[in-house]
Amino acid sequence: MPKTETKHNLLKIGSELIYKNGYNNTGIQEILNEADVPKGSFYFYFQSKEDFGLQVLDLYQEFLFDRMNQRFEDYSLSPLDRIKKFFDDFMDYFSKNHCTGGCPVGNLAQEMGDINSAFREKMSEIFEKMKENIKYCLKEAQVKNHISGTINTNDYAEFIINSWEGALIKMKLSKSTDALSIFDGIVFKDLLK
Amino acid sequence: MPKTETKHNLLKIGSELIYKNGYNNTGIQEILNEADVPKGSFYFYFQSKEDFGLQVLDLYQEFLFDRMNQRFEDYSLSPLDRIKKFFDDFMDYFSKNHCTGGCPVGNLAQEMGDINSAFREKMSEIFEKMKENIKYCLKEAQVKNHISGTINTNDYAEFIINSWEGALIKMKLSKSTDALSIFDGIVFKDLLK
Repeated sequence: MPKTETKHNLLKIGSELIYKNGYNNTGIQEILNEADVPKGSFYFYFQSKEDFGLQVLDLYQEFLFDRMNQRFEDYSLSPLDRIKKFFDDFMDYFSKNHCTGGCPVGNLAQEMGDINSAFREKMSEIFEKMKENIKYCLKEAQVKNHISGTINTNDYAEFIINSWEGALIKMKLSKSTDALSIFDGIVFKDLLK
Repeated sequence: MPKTETKHNLLKIGSELIYKNGYNNTGIQEILNEADVPKGSFYFYFQSKEDFGLQVLDLYQEFLFDRMNQRFEDYSLSPLDRIKKFFDDFMDYFSKNHCTGGCPVGNLAQEMGDINSAFREKMSEIFEKMKENIKYCLKEAQVKNHISGTINTNDYAEFIINSWEGALIKMKLSKSTDALSIFDGIVFKDLLK
């Protein structure tokens, strides 16, 4: 297998293991075994486990912003519907996925937020980028008079993302998408007006 | 040290280690070392690590509902202020605590929600009990015409808890209570009316 392909394979397998079991509970050896890559070759591809973890985060954000752009660049939708559809897509995904996993970035924020500043920095950038996208739609919704002009779009964008992350925790616990439906109803019917 | 005291000490030390490092990253040996209890005596006090973890959750909920009752039984406050003060207390705590740790129950829900049904059951009970307390205050607020009678108090109580849990993730990441202030402003000024 060419070097870049092996590297990508390690990242893909590692991201799945980390998503399922957490970063600290995923061993380098386990990743190499799953990928069928010879023992000891990990450091040929990555400087350290941290370097690997940060590249896994890059893989997550690539997926996330692909999904986000698909919805957020669909100008046939109203600005609020772009935001709503983005979350609805994930709700569909979790319905099919038996409500497992949650948000990889939220999970790592929970696990690594107190202990690793490099993770913290990268995850903060991801949250910030998500927030800016939502804020942009909220501003457009204000210009189009779909929501009140008095809404602080920055705070609302942040609140929406955080509330979604919290709803995902409850989903994992209850094994039901009820918390996501409640999020959807309250945010898009009661809050954004 | 008497048996019950040793047991309580193990639970207290274990709860701090689990809060800091997670359940899976906390070893029985580490707890025994910290508690200065002889190797091998763990199973004299607990049936298994799972049994230990579930008793740690009981310790957390005892603390949590003590704090909750202090505020929720203070009838000098309006029903909404009872809810608000409960969260404000934790905001003060996290300000002093350099925004670390987050909610022990939320952290464990994230970590254990997919992999352990006994944890899931106990944590669901804790979330349910919190929800019922908040719902009760919201109903009282409706009776007193402080909030709209059309609000679904069950869904709002659930949404408030989940949004708080999500704000705590962001707090851990940003090392700032801004996400908690935003939660406070949007929930108590914009949503509950």
